[in-house]
Amino acid sequence: MCGIVGYIGRRPAVPILVKGLKKLEYRGYDSAGVAVLDEEDGLFACKSVGKLAALEEKLGDDYARTSVGIGHTRWATHGRPSDLNAHPHQDCTGEFAVVHNGIIENYLELRDWLSEQGHRLISETDTEVLPHLVEHFYAGDLAAAVRQVLTKIRGAFALVVLSRKDPDRLVAARKDSPLVVGLGDGEFFVASDIPAVLDYTRKTYILADGEMAVVSVNGVKITDFQGNPREKEVFEVKWDAVAAEKGGYEHFMLKEIHEQPRALKDTLLGRLTDYGVELQEVDLTAAEVNQFHKVYIVACGTASHAGLVGKNLIERWARMPVEVDIASEFRYRRPLIDEHTLVVVISQSGETADTLAALREAHRLGARVVAVTNVVGSSVAREADDVIYTWAGPEIAVASTKAYTTQLLGMVLLGLYLAEAKGTMPAEKSQALIAAVRELPRQAQEVLDQQEVIKKLAQSFIAVEDTFFIGRGLDWAVAMEGALKLKEISYIHAEAYAAGELKHGTLALITEETPVIGLATQRGVYEKTISNIKEVKARDAKVIGLTFAGNKDMHKSVDQVVYLPETLDELAPILTVIPLQLLAYYVSVARGCDVDKPRNLAKSVTVE
Amino acid sequence: MCGIVGYIGRRPAVPILVKGLKKLEYRGYDSAGVAVLDEEDGLFACKSVGKLAALEEKLGDDYARTSVGIGHTRWATHGRPSDLNAHPHQDCTGEFAVVHNGIIENYLELRDWLSEQGHRLISETDTEVLPHLVEHFYAGDLAAAVRQVLTKIRGAFALVVLSRKDPDRLVAARKDSPLVVGLGDGEFFVASDIPAVLDYTRKTYILADGEMAVVSVNGVKITDFQGNPREKEVFEVKWDAVAAEKGGYEHFMLKEIHEQPRALKDTLLGRLTDYGVELQEVDLTAAEVNQFHKVYIVACGTASHAGLVGKNLIERWARMPVEVDIASEFRYRRPLIDEHTLVVVISQSGETADTLAALREAHRLGARVVAVTNVVGSSVAREADDVIYTWAGPEIAVASTKAYTTQLLGMVLLGLYLAEAKGTMPAEKSQALIAAVRELPRQAQEVLDQQEVIKKLAQSFIAVEDTFFIGRGLDWAVAMEGALKLKEISYIHAEAYAAGELKHGTLALITEETPVIGLATQRGVYEKTISNIKEVKARDAKVIGLTFAGNKDMHKSVDQVVYLPETLDELAPILTVIPLQLLAYYVSVARGCDVDKPRNLAKSVTVE
Repeated sequence: MCGIVGYIGRRPAVPILVKGLKKLEYRGYDSAGVAVLDEEDGLFACKSVGKLAALEEKLGDDYARTSVGIGHTRWATHGRPSDLNAHPHQDCTGEFAVVHNGIIENYLELRDWLSEQGHRLISETDTEVLPHLVEHFYAGDLAAAVRQVLTKIRGAFALVVLSRKDPDRLVAARKDSPLVVGLGDGEFFVASDIPAVLDYTRKTYILADGEMAVVSVNGVKITDFQGNPREKEVFEVKWDAVAAEKGGYEHFMLKEIHEQPRALKDTLLGRLTDYGVELQEVDLTAAEVNQFHKVYIVACGTASHAGLVGKNLIERWARMPVEVDIASEFRYRRPLIDEHTLVVVISQSGETADTLAALREAHRLGARVVAVTNVVGSSVAREADDVIYTWAGPEIAVASTKAYTTQLLGMVLLGLYLAEAKGTMPAEKSQALIAAVRELPRQAQEVLDQQEVIKKLAQSFIAVEDTFFIGRGLDWAVAMEGALKLKEISYIHAEAYAAGELKHGTLALITEETPVIGLATQRGVYEKTISNIKEVKARDAKVIGLTFAGNKDMHKSVDQVVYLPETLDELAPILTVIPLQLLAYYVSVARGCDVDKPRNLAKSVTVE
Repeated sequence: MCGIVGYIGRRPAVPILVKGLKKLEYRGYDSAGVAVLDEEDGLFACKSVGKLAALEEKLGDDYARTSVGIGHTRWATHGRPSDLNAHPHQDCTGEFAVVHNGIIENYLELRDWLSEQGHRLISETDTEVLPHLVEHFYAGDLAAAVRQVLTKIRGAFALVVLSRKDPDRLVAARKDSPLVVGLGDGEFFVASDIPAVLDYTRKTYILADGEMAVVSVNGVKITDFQGNPREKEVFEVKWDAVAAEKGGYEHFMLKEIHEQPRALKDTLLGRLTDYGVELQEVDLTAAEVNQFHKVYIVACGTASHAGLVGKNLIERWARMPVEVDIASEFRYRRPLIDEHTLVVVISQSGETADTLAALREAHRLGARVVAVTNVVGSSVAREADDVIYTWAGPEIAVASTKAYTTQLLGMVLLGLYLAEAKGTMPAEKSQALIAAVRELPRQAQEVLDQQEVIKKLAQSFIAVEDTFFIGRGLDWAVAMEGALKLKEISYIHAEAYAAGELKHGTLALITEETPVIGLATQRGVYEKTISNIKEVKARDAKVIGLTFAGNKDMHKSVDQVVYLPETLDELAPILTVIPLQLLAYYVSVARGCDVDKPRNLAKSVTVE
């Protein structure tokens, strides 16, 4: 996830671009850059690693005369944060500059092809192929060149192109990444999101997938990718600036919950083939995988809950023994680790102090380390031997949501990768799994569409002080995450229990005042789980059940059922957790808590 | 732990013996028997496996004329429950009968010696050596013979001997197992505990260690083991019958908490040598141990908390990887188990349904299974390949206390056993450990002596609804058990957390209304634990700290400190949990809960 801005008009462009980028910093902040057209110097780009302030300092007061330009604030995916990898990217001649949000899936083959054509690419990014492609196809008409580029690239993108040869226009296009055009008075804006334009105008076009915009001081022309004109309604923004920053959602957490279909889709981009999994930054051969005796997953908090799902999947699919440990414990445990151990560390920020220390301890003991992280170039990503990035984009709310579900997807990908290397999964099974994985983004949206059901359910939790989440197997792992969410933001003492374990003590706490959330998506233990749910029903607890849509039975045993789209048992956690996130969110709102910044907590825990 | 009764007087003995045994059934109930002197038939014994009712049926209405006899209700230690292993035991001639509570440590060598002398022993018990020894030494004076027997046996015992040759007396002796003499009017009683005599008299002698009693219709003579007379004060019982059943304690749980020094001592009996550990019912050679790649500990509830301590110790001492799993989860997990896996199952009752199923699954997959259980002849004990018995005696209160601490000791013994087989522990380390283990029963008593401190602390929990137990490493494992105790019997929502993990979410729940119990016995992570305690102090939580007596620092960081006798870090859990048991107990009492039978729970969970 990155932030894009573009300006064309009569005012100095640089201050407008920088101000717009500031509004988009929530979308990424590891590096930034602008490219402007200067009457004297031609196309000029200025880029800097670090926060926007670093770019501002570098820019100084120059380029006051420019009135057209593009800007970008980056959240690294391909290529670590650096001046060189920052956007805008340019072609060989320096005539074209491109800012891009999203992922060009086939960039490696395009790089090779461009190199054969004599182009010299200098960054580690996927984006850099774009200006070179524009250069290649340019024949006097920028929009025509971009249209040809669009036929060559696969993946997700919002992009804006600036050309010295066509100084009166910006060309923008969108597929699967947001882009809006702000309509001013003799000036126009392009941006990833509305907050960047809201200081100047409330009139916008919201580009749809497959739409292009040619923006000049004389107006905006919207077409499809073939150049056919599109009718476009003006969308008048009614939100205030604060709401706009959250995409119209009341809180970042709700926004991020709703970003999950997108985040899942992004995390899958370029990683699934028809027969298996490709993980670009993981470089483990089958021989290497086969010499591992054990997998150790180390993480904290929500990430450790993703690790528990990982354990289940890797043991099930790759038949390798997996131990999950909390990072703060792992460090001091003298863990039994050597060069035959694969250590997987999971950290959204990649800077979690305990996790980083665990990574270093694992290295010291000779283990190979794979990191699963959301931040390219983070300490964990840099120090690990291999990385699986979750492409969730920046997470602002302290309570993790999209980072968790994409970490789960990371576990699925890693499990499939290891199973492939071990040869433990029949081809028909992996095909069925991959087909089911491809459905998850769409199914996540289906779950989100039930938001109102959950919102209503949440009302009954306003006065609740204690609650339990129960389930067996993978449901138990998800129960832990559901309980943690409720704890974090609504301050309800929620606790997760293996459903079969309640009767060994904790059942004593169950009364009509302790609602229970019973997860029952694991088909092999469904009957057993229902038996445990009946145990708590017998103590007068109100029970909310979660199961698949095809279930015709659970409603008889519980007070209310939330239904999930059908998927394979192994993939259920990615869908099951979404209603639990929404529940925690709406309970927090109903109780008047500070959703995005719960008391006592920090987003990234960089102390022990 | 078994129950002993004896009667000599003018009334029919059998009904008195049976009634007395009924009062002692809490001490054991797997088999029972009586031996009486009948004027016609001489010495007659009747024994039956099962509850007392089975013995009563077998006895019928015979033997109404006997007015002297002994009886026993058994809690098997050596030898499974069976008619043959039930007490009283007899010699070759049938002239002598003995009932015994405790363990004769050197019974194997005595058996061999007796066999060489031509004696034929037929049971699997340690007890059976006693009547044969009496037979051997008998030269016309029963008391003199018993005195000679006492010079030959080692261990713990309360015993009563009946002889056809001395039909006017019972000879009793005690060392480390309780025994009382009830003083009636022309009739006398011997019993393990006061409830057995309370229907007949309130006047008693409480025998001390090293005392013998010769009891006839004419009176009671108390001597030491050398025959020197002892002055004895009459103890007049003021308790009512209900209190008497609980040894004067208000609840079984408190009684069982106080039985821990004894239970620990019993569990160690005969198992420690100067250089290592002897586990009679474990038959693993060093070669067998060395072919295990992994140890799996499977249990439920409190027993699984003992398993977590076991994991830490076995990994630390024997450097074998250990996984702890909840039995209800293990069964359905397709665990990675084969003939190179050692599976350890822990169950107080030996009948826990999930644990038993896990044992069977482990066997099916080819694993060797060691059981740690408190009940000889239980299903788990019968089906396992090897057994480590915890000799805690019957546990009546639903909330487990002495079973847990003896399970911990079982883990210590197993850890030492495996380390010895693996050759991973230097001799000086194992000697230091064994020396420290020997101190534990005495140190447990020291902790119990602080009961009033804990009782006072408990008052501040009367209105508490939520609390957290935190610690690192082994302290974390104990924190889980402490939290479970409070949950079970006081219905406070207590939860344990790895101290370093709180900041990843749960810290949001901490306010001045959530007291925190901070365990800090692990010296290697002491500073880190104090840092985490300061995090909760900073959120205004009231903190009770537990640490060793030598600590001069913790009182500065917490509101109150409970000090424990100094031991090695690895052994701390056995002492640390005792104040937590007492806390749960006194909070439960203060809140008016049903301590021994908490709502919703059963003692032995024989359903899934």
